[in-house]
Order: sequence, then structure tokens, then C-alpha cells
Amino acid sequence: MTFRRLKRKTLHRARVFTLDTETWRGPDGRTFERQTIVHPGAVAIVPFDEDGRILMIRQFRPAVERFLLEIPAGTREAGESPLLCAKRELAEETGFAAESWRKLGAVYTAPGFCNEKILLYKAWDLYPKHAEQDEDEHITPVALTPAQVKQAVRKGKICDAKTLSALLQLQWL
Amino acid sequence: MTFRRLKRKTLHRARVFTLDTETWRGPDGRTFERQTIVHPGAVAIVPFDEDGRILMIRQFRPAVERFLLEIPAGTREAGESPLLCAKRELAEETGFAAESWRKLGAVYTAPGFCNEKILLYKAWDLYPKHAEQDEDEHITPVALTPAQVKQAVRKGKICDAKTLSALLQLQWL
Repeated sequence: MTFRRLKRKTLHRARVFTLDTETWRGPDGRTFERQTIVHPGAVAIVPFDEDGRILMIRQFRPAVERFLLEIPAGTREAGESPLLCAKRELAEETGFAAESWRKLGAVYTAPGFCNEKILLYKAWDLYPKHAEQDEDEHITPVALTPAQVKQAVRKGKICDAKTLSALLQLQWL
Repeated sequence: MTFRRLKRKTLHRARVFTLDTETWRGPDGRTFERQTIVHPGAVAIVPFDEDGRILMIRQFRPAVERFLLEIPAGTREAGESPLLCAKRELAEETGFAAESWRKLGAVYTAPGFCNEKILLYKAWDLYPKHAEQDEDEHITPVALTPAQVKQAVRKGKICDAKTLSALLQLQWL
């Protein structure tokens, strides 16, 4: 079974991603078209404080028109290594740096139409580190015990896919 | 804290989603721009067979240029209820219908730039039901025991965010 991309053309360049149209040929020889969001990739971090609480953030997400409770995360900048990106985002979003890091897995957020891949990390041994927030992010840090996190998932109060994915990877580590 | 969307304009209409540009005003009075993928929403199903195995599917995903192991899922059609959509997708992708259904939670797949919301279901008491596959989907069903699923997550062989999210919701039900 082989699939081959025959053509790709960018239809629109947005700030963070592009919208491309692609022509593919499937193993049966038929060609088909897809519109794909081409994204630079991202990282997300599950940071544990010294009391074993998970540092999450509450932020307004214009795309879904509501506040969401999520783990710290951010889009990779050009040429930036994933771990460096994770350290930058952790500081910007929570005001902490971490001495200890461990890779969890990777997730594709919406593989039906978007190539975004998020690399997930666990971080601990935190210490305060000042960093500027992006002006339009309006982020509030929230520390939750593992029991509170579980309860929040059960009640549907955590419904961000990368956050739930990271929690499962931690649970089944 | 209030955020208000002041303007929205569609820049491009793709087959499944549109790319919109939006102007928002934040609680500090400042305005900012966002490009948003506006998606009709989707459903995904964790189907259990009579041996307690989870019916997953392996399919080629052009957007990420690889095969992924995922739970059955699909995009909602105009006016289609989520449960009806879940029943249609389960039949199309696995060849089974289910007598018993239970809602799990909902997830936002990529809330930083996309409004896609996936409603998740558990389905059991399966019986065979023929349905046509979409021509370009090339789907192979794979039945995995819960232990095999856990092992696959640990080894990074399941890296689709909606699938991991649904598995956590089941685990913490």
C-alpha cells in the first residue's frame, strides 16, 4: 500500500499556519484532493510543583469562544528545538523553569486535515523564572492536585485534547 | 473579563472547513487578530466487541503523511445529530452497529486556531452492519485487547489526540 503526494500548493498564509491544497494518488491508482493545514508543530508540558500539583493555565481561546483549562503549550518558532521551546513556553506561561525534564509521547491533534504534531514533556523541580507573556494571551495559572485533575476530567472541565492525551501518557507511563 | 469578537470574514472555503480571519477585543480594550479554522464538528467512538476488545482502525492520513491507529470517527454532516453521525461512522468504518451507547466527554482538538469539537462515545453490544466506505479512506479495522491498547500507547503507536483523550475518559469514568 503506497500513497504518494503528487502536488501541493499553498492557498493562503496565516500567521501560524498555511492552508495548502494537495493531490494524492492512492494504492488503487486513483487520485484525490485534500486541503491541509500545515503547521510548524508545538510542544506542551505537564509541570509538577514541589507539592505534586500540576500547574495548568486558564486562558481565553478565541477559536472556541471560551476559556479552557490546559497544560502550558506553545507553537515552535523557526529553527527552535522542541525542548528549548518547551522551556520558553513554561516560563512565559507559568513564571517557572524546571530542572528536570522527561519526554512523554507525541500527538497529532487533528490528523484528518492538519499536520500539527505536539511533543509532550513532564517537567519538575521547578524554580521561579520571570518571562514576558505574549500581550494577547491573558493567562491565569492554576495549580491542581492529581485528584483535582481527575475530578476535573470526569466533570468535563478539562476538554483540551493535548492535555487529556498528556494525562493518559503520564497515567500509563 | 470579557472578550468580544468584533468582526469575522471567511478568507477561504475548503471542503470540510473554512479559514476565517477574526478581530477580537480583549478585557484590556486592545484589539487583536486571529486566523481560525471553522469546522462543523465531529464524533469519535470507542467500540467494544463481545470479547472486550476495542475496535480501532488503521488508515492513511495524508495530512501527516503516515498511517495512524485511531478509534472510528468522522465529521458531522449538516443537520446531522451527533449520535446519528456516530452510528453512521461506526458502520462505515468498522462494518458494525451497536445496541448500547454511552456518551463520554467532548474534546477540542486544536483550540489555539481551530474550533473543532469532537463528541466521544462508548459503544458495545455490536452486530454486523454493512455500509459503504468512502472511496478514498482505505481503512483497515484492528481489534485490540485493553492490554494491547495500553502497550500501544506506551510505545507511541497510538498518537492520535482524540483517541488518547477518549481512552483517558474511559479510564477515569
